[in-house]
Formats: sequence, structure tokens, C-alpha cells
Amino acid sequence: SSLLLSLMLWKSKETEINEKSFMSETITPLKDLLSDSESMRKKFELFVMKVQKDVCHELQKVEDKDNDIDGNHESANFRVDRWTREEGGGGVSCVLEDGRVFEKAGVNISVVYGTLGAPAAQQMKSRGKAFKDNADLKFFACGVSSVIHPRNPNVPTLHFNYRYFEVQDVTNDEKYWWFGGGTDMTPYILDEKDVTHFHQTLKNACDRHNKTYYQKFKKWCDQYFFINHRNECRGIGGLFFDDIDHPNQKEAFDFVKSCADAIIPCYIPVVNNNVNKGYSYSDRQWQLLRRGRYVEFNLIYDRGTKFGLVTPGSRYESILMSLPLVAKWQYCHSPEPGSKEDRLMQVLKKPREWV
Amino acid sequence: SSLLLSLMLWKSKETEINEKSFMSETITPLKDLLSDSESMRKKFELFVMKVQKDVCHELQKVEDKDNDIDGNHESANFRVDRWTREEGGGGVSCVLEDGRVFEKAGVNISVVYGTLGAPAAQQMKSRGKAFKDNADLKFFACGVSSVIHPRNPNVPTLHFNYRYFEVQDVTNDEKYWWFGGGTDMTPYILDEKDVTHFHQTLKNACDRHNKTYYQKFKKWCDQYFFINHRNECRGIGGLFFDDIDHPNQKEAFDFVKSCADAIIPCYIPVVNNNVNKGYSYSDRQWQLLRRGRYVEFNLIYDRGTKFGLVTPGSRYESILMSLPLVAKWQYCHSPEPGSKEDRLMQVLKKPREWV
Repeated sequence: SSLLLSLMLWKSKETEINEKSFMSETITPLKDLLSDSESMRKKFELFVMKVQKDVCHELQKVEDKDNDIDGNHESANFRVDRWTREEGGGGVSCVLEDGRVFEKAGVNISVVYGTLGAPAAQQMKSRGKAFKDNADLKFFACGVSSVIHPRNPNVPTLHFNYRYFEVQDVTNDEKYWWFGGGTDMTPYILDEKDVTHFHQTLKNACDRHNKTYYQKFKKWCDQYFFINHRNECRGIGGLFFDDIDHPNQKEAFDFVKSCADAIIPCYIPVVNNNVNKGYSYSDRQWQLLRRGRYVEFNLIYDRGTKFGLVTPGSRYESILMSLPLVAKWQYCHSPEPGSKEDRLMQVLKKPREWV
Repeated sequence: SSLLLSLMLWKSKETEINEKSFMSETITPLKDLLSDSESMRKKFELFVMKVQKDVCHELQKVEDKDNDIDGNHESANFRVDRWTREEGGGGVSCVLEDGRVFEKAGVNISVVYGTLGAPAAQQMKSRGKAFKDNADLKFFACGVSSVIHPRNPNVPTLHFNYRYFEVQDVTNDEKYWWFGGGTDMTPYILDEKDVTHFHQTLKNACDRHNKTYYQKFKKWCDQYFFINHRNECRGIGGLFFDDIDHPNQKEAFDFVKSCADAIIPCYIPVVNNNVNKGYSYSDRQWQLLRRGRYVEFNLIYDRGTKFGLVTPGSRYESILMSLPLVAKWQYCHSPEPGSKEDRLMQVLKKPREWV
């Protein structure tokens, strides 16, 4: 019957993956990715392509919303750059710049592989197993990474990153794999309700898999996104984890998928709550100073940025898309005690429990 | 006679060093500094205090000049912060911010000493002698360091730094000392005449001491101020040297003094030549993008900044005064071939001989 036919077509439309499903052609040819449903490398490449598309799509919707209210502002669009790497693999960078809602938003995926020295392999992990010094190592790394800097100081900056690594010791044919990732937020003006919503959404994603995860990865996040020389956190935290290779590959991947599914619900409501709030010149100046701190963290401490910039054949424009469009540094700036800027600083100096 | 008396008073006025000679009280009590004319530590502390005063005084003159032409702009003044360090020593930071001519100008001196591990001692030198791994080391470091970011994109940024180090191996009582330093310039719009004047002035200072110095230290400067991930130099270079302990302490110090004497004549004429030139919105945007590169170099590569930020008790506000008031990052920005921005990039990609 035609009803059955319609249902079949609808079903096939919803599940069929084709070039149109993503922001660009995949790095590995799509038919190879779809040919082996057992390979985690292939499953993860399809996963990061999907996360990229979903997030870009959602951000574009916010950027375009009510665009015709004010004729002076035109919404910006994502620029899509697909690049390949001589040493193996490549990536897709999607960057929206100087928009109506988003001053700079980047969502990048990359799939890279090749051989690497043991010190570089060591650096890929924040802790855990050690590789032998003279090992002959092959690696595979696939991830999605994003930083979203809205224009309005009432809207926090978001960062997330989810990645899958494989390292193979060719000498003894041992193979290691692990997942890493996290989502964290950096407000300029503190709204406690928003921060609680953000953390609660991430906690729910964790709780579906392991009741100890949220506490552990929340703490790890506060420790990782820490600007040591200033003795303050970059933002109000979220989740950060690395070296996840338990209880098994399927369940570890399911956990990562739950985290990724939480990106839009933890952040987009916060954007919508604040995007139409007014702000003053001094709010904007404060935001730019805090963006200076963001630059300090990313260029001095962030392992991903440092690893990226020293990796041969890496694309520095994709790595540095995390930097804000504008940042300021004022000598000895210190917010007035009791001001809203000071209230934010109290939380950055001493991370709080939010749920 | 009264003539003789006047001459005597004039002579004494010119040579007498007192608290008024400097931007602030010295770190080591002035009477101690003046009590031992043989100690290089004391001579160098007096030297950096004098350089700081001379440069601040000269910059303030430029900042204040013609101040009354335009009622909208008020010139800014240097803020002076004297700080001490629990572990030994301290410093004086002079920073002028958001001025008429200078958007941010910092001239800092510091005198620090204490004990340090061999790895940190190693890091103080860019090459040369190695300290034993288990050595018990005492160090003394004294220097003057400055970054001057003018507001007008036609006026280049200047950086200079002159320093004296002592390391003493307590185990065997061996003592090492050396000087380091340099002056380099970062233009946003290239004026070849200005760059030639800048290099010629530095070459003259070198030539008075050793005919091989200019070539050697000019090359070292191009290599040091290099943004590796972008494959470009930070600016048009100048001088950079380290580990200078020859031919003897007196002559090495005399060379450093000649370099310091060249700071004002190599730079201030360049400021005066360009400070009243007009500039466009796009000139300013280009300057801000190049200031982003300045931040990248300082936070990712500069040994002084990195060493400073990991040294216990260091004053991060003084270290980070080198960062511009405002910086920008635009994804994949690339100047149009043949434009003036592109002409600058050609020189940054391939350092030229200027004299």
C-alpha cells in the first residue's frame, strides 16, 4: 500500500547516511566508513561528523533567528574548510565569524594517523600507561573540538572536545585505545541558574552510565582548566576526562555519545536565556579582559593546543580558531569588591558544587 | 670665585646619584649600591634603574608633546609599582596605558636572587656551559625589560631587554656570570628608511666593541623572534644575544651599555617620523591582528615569559605587561598579494639585510 511505501521511505530517509548528512565530504571515503560497522575508527569518524553537523546546524538556527528584526545586522554563516594532511588523514573546520549572535564559533573535526615517537605518544595521554622508550608506534586520533564565543557578554563561551585514540606498538603488536573529552563553560557575568542547568544536564548524561563519573570528571575539569600563574579557573567547569578504556569499548563509546548528546541541551537554553539582554560598555570591556585570560590558558597550558602546534603537518588555523576574535590585557586590572565582576571571580578562584 | 662655585655645583648635580635619579626607590638600599663600586651586581642594578628612568622620561616627553592641540585627548602618565619578593629581591614596574601616543608601554626592572635547581639554571641560558645535575646552585639575576605598543599603526612596537646573571655552584664554589639582551622592532606598516635607521644605529653601537657582533646578533635575533607554527618572524629584528662573558667583565658591560645607549636614538626618531600620520580603520584592524601574533610569540615561545611564569614568587602582572592592550584573531586572514600588508609579510617570512 502507499502508506507502507511512505513509511518505508520516511524510515529510509531518517536513517540513511549520505554526503548530505554532514558539513562536508568525509575524510575517509564514505563508502569505506559505512562498509565496516565493527571498526571503532570508522564509527568514531561518522560520530564526529554527525556531532559537527548537529552543533553547526543548531548554532546557525540561533544566529539566523529574528534576523529581520533589525536591518543593521546580518547573520553570518559557517565557512567550511576540508583539508587533508600529507602524513595521513585530514579534517573539516567550520568557522562562523563576526556574526549577529556569535562573534566567533568554530566546530572542527580531524582524523589523523601515522607514526610517532614515544614522547609524543606519552603527551597524548594525561596519565596512565607508559609506552616503551624505543617503541615503534603507530597512532590514530579522531576528534571533534569546538569553541563558541558569543558577542553578548551575558552569554557564556562554550568549549567541548570528544576524541578517540589508538596507539599500536609495532614491535610487540600491542594495541591501546581510549576515549577522552569534555564540555565546559566560561561565563563573563554569572547567572547561577544557568550554571546549575548546565551542570545538571551534564550530570544526567554521566549518571546514565556510572554514578561516580560526574563527581570525578567535574573535579578533573576544574583541575585541568586552571590558569596556574593567576591561581584561577578559566570558567565554571563542566566535564573533563581522558584515558577512558573501561568497562569495554562499546560502553565507553556509549558514554561519550551521551556526553555529546548533552551539548545542545546544556548550552543552547543558556544562549536563548541571555542573548537578548542588554549590556554596557563596561560589560563588554570586562568580557574582553576575560577573553585575554582565555588566550592565556589556551596558549600556555592547553595540552591539545600545544600538541597540535608541534605536530608536523597540523593546520594551525584550525587549532587557533579557539582564540576569541578580540581580547584585551589591562595592567593590574582588578574588579571592585562586591561588583558582579568580583562575584564571578570568587567562583573562578574557588570552584563550587552546582548540583 | 662664584664661577668656580657654579661649575662645582653643576658638576656635582650632574653626577650625584640619589633617590630622585630613578623612577622609584631602588630594590637594594641606595647607600649599599653606592658603597662598592667593584661589584657588578651593584653596578648593574644602578644601570637598569638609570635605563628605566631615561626611557620612561623620553616616552613621557613624546606622550606629552602637543598635548594641548586637541582637547579631546589627554596624555597618560607612567604608573610606578615597586614590589619585593619573599624569596629575595624585587622590582620596579613602570606602565603607561591607554595614552595619546602609547597604547601600552611598560619598562620594568627586576633584581632577584636565591637558590634554584639545575634544570631552571639551564633554562636561564640559551646555550653554553652545563651545570652538574645535582649541583647546589645560587643565582642572581638583574635586568631591564620593556615593550612599547604605540596606538598609531604607522609606529612600530619596540622591545628591549638587558640582563646580568650570576650562578654560583655552592658545592665547588665555581662562579659563572654572563650578560644577555637585545633590542628589536615590530612594524605594522613597513617603512624601509625607518628600519634601516634602526638597524644602522644598533650596528654603530656594536661596531664600537667588536666588528663581528652586529652580523652575529642580528642573525640570532631573527632566529629567536620566530613564530615557528606560522613560519614567520615577529618583527624586523634588531639585536639578540646571550651568554656574553668575553672578552672580560668590564668590556662585556661596556658593550651592554652601548646597546642601552642606542635605545632612544634607534627608536624615538621612528616614533616622531610616524606619530602624526593618518591611518584607516583597516590599518588599525591589521595592527590588531599582528598584535595577536605578538601574543602568540610571547605566550608560546618567549623563554623570558615562560621562565618568569614558572618562577615561584614572580609577579605575573609585570611579566604580562608585554601583551598589547588589544589583540585580534581572525580565522584564515591573509593579506591581498601586492598590498602593503603583504609587503610587510614578505619581510617577516624572509628576513632582509638592512645595512
